[in-house]
Amino acid sequence: MKKVIYLSFDGTAYHGWQRQENAVTVQETLEKALNKLTEESIRATGCSRTDTGVHAKKFVCSFNTESKIPNIKFPLAVNAHLPDDIAVFYCGDADEKFHPRYDAKIKQYCYTIYNGRIRDPLSKARAWHYPVKLNLGKMQEASKYLIGTHDFSAFMATGSQNKTTVRTMKNITVDKKEDYIYINLWADGYLYNMVRIIAGTLAYAGCDKIKVNEIQDIIKSQTRERAGITAPPFGLMLMEVEY
Amino acid sequence: MKKVIYLSFDGTAYHGWQRQENAVTVQETLEKALNKLTEESIRATGCSRTDTGVHAKKFVCSFNTESKIPNIKFPLAVNAHLPDDIAVFYCGDADEKFHPRYDAKIKQYCYTIYNGRIRDPLSKARAWHYPVKLNLGKMQEASKYLIGTHDFSAFMATGSQNKTTVRTMKNITVDKKEDYIYINLWADGYLYNMVRIIAGTLAYAGCDKIKVNEIQDIIKSQTRERAGITAPPFGLMLMEVEY
Repeated sequence: MKKVIYLSFDGTAYHGWQRQENAVTVQETLEKALNKLTEESIRATGCSRTDTGVHAKKFVCSFNTESKIPNIKFPLAVNAHLPDDIAVFYCGDADEKFHPRYDAKIKQYCYTIYNGRIRDPLSKARAWHYPVKLNLGKMQEASKYLIGTHDFSAFMATGSQNKTTVRTMKNITVDKKEDYIYINLWADGYLYNMVRIIAGTLAYAGCDKIKVNEIQDIIKSQTRERAGITAPPFGLMLMEVEY
Repeated sequence: MKKVIYLSFDGTAYHGWQRQENAVTVQETLEKALNKLTEESIRATGCSRTDTGVHAKKFVCSFNTESKIPNIKFPLAVNAHLPDDIAVFYCGDADEKFHPRYDAKIKQYCYTIYNGRIRDPLSKARAWHYPVKLNLGKMQEASKYLIGTHDFSAFMATGSQNKTTVRTMKNITVDKKEDYIYINLWADGYLYNMVRIIAGTLAYAGCDKIKVNEIQDIIKSQTRERAGITAPPFGLMLMEVEY
């Protein structure tokens, strides 16, 4: 029987979602917990690879199991076998054909920039400290050029392999609260490091390292070097996946 | 010359503010950084003792120094010698008579309760997970009885030594956002564990383990056993100190 679960995690201690040799990942940690609970050998399929240090408010994953534990009881049962930086908060039945990654229609990410002059110990693992004053209006203006269907090659880590580099960015918002800037993005998919490169590019636009009206040219150029820096992973959080 | 500095810290890794034998504290860590920077032997005076794991958004402390580093440059200079979970964000000149603890008129603390059914990894070091559904209205009503000048003995850890157990609670607010409940308190001073016992008592009031109309009796009883549980330290944050 196929189940779908939602989990949240603080990614600080993990080398991303995907199983790796010689590195602790969320997938491996979750699978170990599922195996302890069910006494099966479960392989979980995730909605996205995430980088080391990236967090998730809602990460969707599916797996097959013979377990008879009722869905309502499943989250607490598996959480008893998970460390305190990962928690399952929902379990439901899934169609046998359901695939958390291929079936995702929109994924929302949030990138957080801390724009105070002096670093903030209270957000050290959750926000990118960028001490140069950023102009919110310019960041918002720059973000508008990214909305739509584009070849996002200029916003992809070099060396990545993708069938297509065209993605549709449904919306981007850039908001500020106190010294924190929140970049929320909704797209049908993302290239490798795409959100982090967009965050770095919008930061550059906010302090005139990149001119707002250059963004269209950067997209057209399909050249990674034209875009801004790759912002660090710990400012990134997967917020929501829509099917 | 006397200086006053404001610092913020994530208290997770520290045994509170005050110097201790065989345990790492914020005071000791700060003093080591000040000593490296100034090549003096500085003793810092803090605005409050804090428990292991308690955080501070604004902690006030003072010290004497011969350093000629300008105040505006001082925070970044000392931060270069501090770990990333402590940061100084302001430095100014202080009157020779200034005492961060004795001169404080009002201290604001915030206690955060996470009231979701399932634990949240993203707030594990910042909020007390209390999974029993809490009634916000009852917590707010209960909190009103604590406002004013009272003998708060019932809300003090047993075995504490204080000249007087009378304190003036200027205000308490209890707010909810999603599954998080924020208890903000403004008082002229606090007894040992007072905020944590108040948080535990308000949680009990929110789920009828204590009746709202018992609060006055609990205060009058001056008996620790009558009040609620001592909420864990990691939900507590020192927000502001007014002089």
